[in-house]
Amino acid sequence: MPDEAGFIGMLRAIAHDPAARGLADDAAVLPLGDTTLVLTHDMLVDGVHVLPGADPADVAWKLVATNISDLAAKGAEPVGVLLGYMLGDNDARFADGLLQVLDHYGVPLLGGDTVSGGPPRSYGLTAIGRATHTPVPARNGAQPGDRLWLTGEMGAAMLGFEALRDGTAADSTAYRRPLARLPEGLALAPLVTAMMDVSDGLLLDAWRLAEASGVTLAIDGPAVPIATPEHRRFDALRWGDDYELLFTLPADTEPPVPASCIGAIEQRGFAPLFLDGNPVLSDAGLGWQHAVVAPPEPHST
Amino acid sequence: MPDEAGFIGMLRAIAHDPAARGLADDAAVLPLGDTTLVLTHDMLVDGVHVLPGADPADVAWKLVATNISDLAAKGAEPVGVLLGYMLGDNDARFADGLLQVLDHYGVPLLGGDTVSGGPPRSYGLTAIGRATHTPVPARNGAQPGDRLWLTGEMGAAMLGFEALRDGTAADSTAYRRPLARLPEGLALAPLVTAMMDVSDGLLLDAWRLAEASGVTLAIDGPAVPIATPEHRRFDALRWGDDYELLFTLPADTEPPVPASCIGAIEQRGFAPLFLDGNPVLSDAGLGWQHAVVAPPEPHST
Repeated sequence: MPDEAGFIGMLRAIAHDPAARGLADDAAVLPLGDTTLVLTHDMLVDGVHVLPGADPADVAWKLVATNISDLAAKGAEPVGVLLGYMLGDNDARFADGLLQVLDHYGVPLLGGDTVSGGPPRSYGLTAIGRATHTPVPARNGAQPGDRLWLTGEMGAAMLGFEALRDGTAADSTAYRRPLARLPEGLALAPLVTAMMDVSDGLLLDAWRLAEASGVTLAIDGPAVPIATPEHRRFDALRWGDDYELLFTLPADTEPPVPASCIGAIEQRGFAPLFLDGNPVLSDAGLGWQHAVVAPPEPHST
Repeated sequence: MPDEAGFIGMLRAIAHDPAARGLADDAAVLPLGDTTLVLTHDMLVDGVHVLPGADPADVAWKLVATNISDLAAKGAEPVGVLLGYMLGDNDARFADGLLQVLDHYGVPLLGGDTVSGGPPRSYGLTAIGRATHTPVPARNGAQPGDRLWLTGEMGAAMLGFEALRDGTAADSTAYRRPLARLPEGLALAPLVTAMMDVSDGLLLDAWRLAEASGVTLAIDGPAVPIATPEHRRFDALRWGDDYELLFTLPADTEPPVPASCIGAIEQRGFAPLFLDGNPVLSDAGLGWQHAVVAPPEPHST
């Protein structure tokens, strides 16, 4: 079995440049001349991140949007993307989706590579952004006394996934075509003490923010807006793919964009995370450990 | 069957930003503030670009070196790479090779993504460079009256591939661990009228340079240094993976680095390429059409 944690540990030992941020942030941050670049690369793999029978246009959309979301978490303006594409069936439909998502975000396709191979097919995307504010927001800046905020609501992607899985008529758009919170990230960057996007589940990503900042996050579960019925609140807090922004602000600062205050930042206690007063002592089972679950399963059992 | 040419045509229609250079160059060239970025992304796929049983350290080396070669062709200094990695057997060995090649070129690992999936495994690398000279060399600047130059020799990678394929004791280093002509590219950038790296075979890449520049290249076959016995000269001219630099200089300019003059640039005649006075009328069979041959076969039949 591949040992992802072990390999990432080896990469961290290699990635000692400060721009890499210890491979523990949403993106690399590289000052270059009078510009600060923000760089991110994500892969999708059929059967791991992409459901069988997925519309290639949706794959293209998600590939771009999830990378743009990483830029949003840094308050970075996208300046272009590079695509790594494995040819297969219905390449034209992928190109359609790519055109749509690039138009939506006003981002140019700059280059990339096209290869044969698979199945399974894999897809890579590099997004290049320009920081609009320095210091560039990071996961490690949350301070005791700050408040914890979240844009949007959790669980919409989960419902979309379930609609696809079960073949119901429910709307699956949130899962297939997530929206990156780009304008929100740009507006928040000068104000936040820490920020990240929620890709792997609110609780797991909050855990990571707490660990990076060396603080404890006390989350008020009922304060988290959810797209699901109330009885599935805990599922919604653990499911990923919603791509909202999770951020911390000083107590006297109100966010300039619609967002919900979902908790408080405290001195580091014996757990990095408290949910409704209960300590969370391990990140196991909190959400999606990145890309090791294939394909996603419902969490409602 | 996937139609690579058709799909690339669709991408070209999307990639209308001038920085994309019509997806017809070795890299994207993006002015940003006081810096000009040079950006490239390549993928390798097991069984397509990677021989069965290849040492993962060699895969890492080649993945990085081939992207650095694209930067070399632009006279760009590498500032970092992002890795897309699919976990598998012997990840530690891949990390070893990655460390070696990044140290060799003094390039930091900035970030990337690690995923499950495969087989076949695929690997992506994005290299980010900073142009050291503007205008940044392109494929389309060759002028009638220029001379055509080549660093190094052709065919060494072919011999290395054959040693691996046949299990002989001959040296396979040139195939497994190509060297990017980075110092040469930096020295040449202010002088050349056109430049590219030779990844898919000298004749095919020369054809592309001629097409991009709208000129005819007259290649003097015997002037091309080869690593092979003389009877395999034509194979050496068609085989890829040597990663030398092919460039054009005004007639009165001598290259500042070791290189061989291998031909002349003429007004566009009825063929883009002449080899020893014979017109080459099609690019079919000239070399490796990018990534559609799996795995490489010898050309000596």
